[in-house]
Amino acid sequence: MNTPPSPQLGTGTPRLSLNRWTFRTTPVQEFLETTAARGIDAVGLWRQDVAEVGLEALRRRVDDAGLRVSTLCRGGFLTAAGEADRAAALEDNRRAIDETAALGAPTLVLVVGGVDRTDKDLVGARARVTEAVAELAPYAAERGVTLSIEPLHPMFTADRAVVSTIDQALDIAEASGSPAAGVVVDTYHVWWDPTLERAIQRAAATERLFSYQVCDWNLPLAAEPLHSRGYMGDGYIDFPSITRMIAAAGYTGDIEVEIFNEDVWATPADEAARIIAERFEQLVLPHA
Amino acid sequence: MNTPPSPQLGTGTPRLSLNRWTFRTTPVQEFLETTAARGIDAVGLWRQDVAEVGLEALRRRVDDAGLRVSTLCRGGFLTAAGEADRAAALEDNRRAIDETAALGAPTLVLVVGGVDRTDKDLVGARARVTEAVAELAPYAAERGVTLSIEPLHPMFTADRAVVSTIDQALDIAEASGSPAAGVVVDTYHVWWDPTLERAIQRAAATERLFSYQVCDWNLPLAAEPLHSRGYMGDGYIDFPSITRMIAAAGYTGDIEVEIFNEDVWATPADEAARIIAERFEQLVLPHA
Repeated sequence: MNTPPSPQLGTGTPRLSLNRWTFRTTPVQEFLETTAARGIDAVGLWRQDVAEVGLEALRRRVDDAGLRVSTLCRGGFLTAAGEADRAAALEDNRRAIDETAALGAPTLVLVVGGVDRTDKDLVGARARVTEAVAELAPYAAERGVTLSIEPLHPMFTADRAVVSTIDQALDIAEASGSPAAGVVVDTYHVWWDPTLERAIQRAAATERLFSYQVCDWNLPLAAEPLHSRGYMGDGYIDFPSITRMIAAAGYTGDIEVEIFNEDVWATPADEAARIIAERFEQLVLPHA
Repeated sequence: MNTPPSPQLGTGTPRLSLNRWTFRTTPVQEFLETTAARGIDAVGLWRQDVAEVGLEALRRRVDDAGLRVSTLCRGGFLTAAGEADRAAALEDNRRAIDETAALGAPTLVLVVGGVDRTDKDLVGARARVTEAVAELAPYAAERGVTLSIEPLHPMFTADRAVVSTIDQALDIAEASGSPAAGVVVDTYHVWWDPTLERAIQRAAATERLFSYQVCDWNLPLAAEPLHSRGYMGDGYIDFPSITRMIAAAGYTGDIEVEIFNEDVWATPADEAARIIAERFEQLVLPHA
């Protein structure tokens, strides 16, 4: 690691999971060691890590570090209309489900995909997502994992996810008829929703609240709006309020910190992890 | 004007209103003449025009050009918590209502304001908007105009508008107890909403659908995301579908084209007006 161990090392932060993409510029082995050295016991991983390290080797590294995998990111991209594209997407998602199970992660995050700019058929794209989730959920259930549909902020509806709200994700999950389909609540994507509290309650009441992810909404927006995610406390999101909604609904699982931000990526991993743990203990954990 | 009259001049386009900000780089007199010369009979104006030209002089210029004013933009910014700020905002909105009436416009567009980054109290900011609209709506009704609450895209929740959906705007409008409070539906801001059709029906059924504005959602987002608004057809929005929802709900009023876009602002006014009329006749009017 680039920095000397800080005094807080190893004290641990309950509930906290570090998402791999928060540390995308750090080699995966260093990321795992940094996490473990801080006494944090879970990580969210990405399929890019599987591709780079290999599935069995990655699982072994995680085990050796004494960590759990809270989520695997990501499946999805299920909006293509053509038969061949659709079949390929389903097959890729089945592989992602297999990887989720092999890593011992409880859930696979699904970013469902955007709108075709030529047909602009938002309603059709959403219908294809609903069909695909219904097809994939039983496959996930058989392998003992769940599918966490991720509502993305509506500024990504066009190019990344035609699912924009928790309620919409829950409609799709319920339509699957499978208890293995549900939702991940990511503060960056849903903090603005005027029906947020009710939607969180519905997710929990239907046992479909599978993951809670946190990061702040920074302004001005980065040139790549995905990268405006910030450390909790740097932006506009009221973490105590939203975390209390999550807690009141009965969620007791991991809380993942997932930040895409050029400044964070330029920060040594241990320093970024220290800031994250500090902010988490200030703004999230007391309300969780 | 910078360009010679085009052959289509004066043929007219029913239902179309040109919003002043689409032509912000054009002097207001030229904007009015360009609009009238195309046989378009309505414009949406801004309070900046009132400040520049004077209220009576602006009304006279509009009348002399044979035009109507479809909306005045904008009141709002009602989220401040301090007593003095709140009183000043209400007073400014009363002046905006007076100007709306004096211009013969049926409705004032309200951009309600964002969240205070220090307190991050989104719920409180929304409550203050609800109170303020209830206070202003009777004043508007006495002057024969309405208040069109504008749900802004959720990427503006933090800094511009804590009202993000049509349903939320309607909740606030209904809470006012006044028929003078309602909503403007702007495609850029609401096209992503999975409950769009139902929300439009509710707005019309409660007689609170006061204005319909169109422009496209362009990607990549401009550095200033407000300026990613595009000519209809350039982006991802399905104008025929949304316009059919508006028509089916019974809306028969003006349809305003409001585009904030550096390229459009660099285009000669008559050429921009020609493109707008053409796209409007292709993508909007047949479904309206």
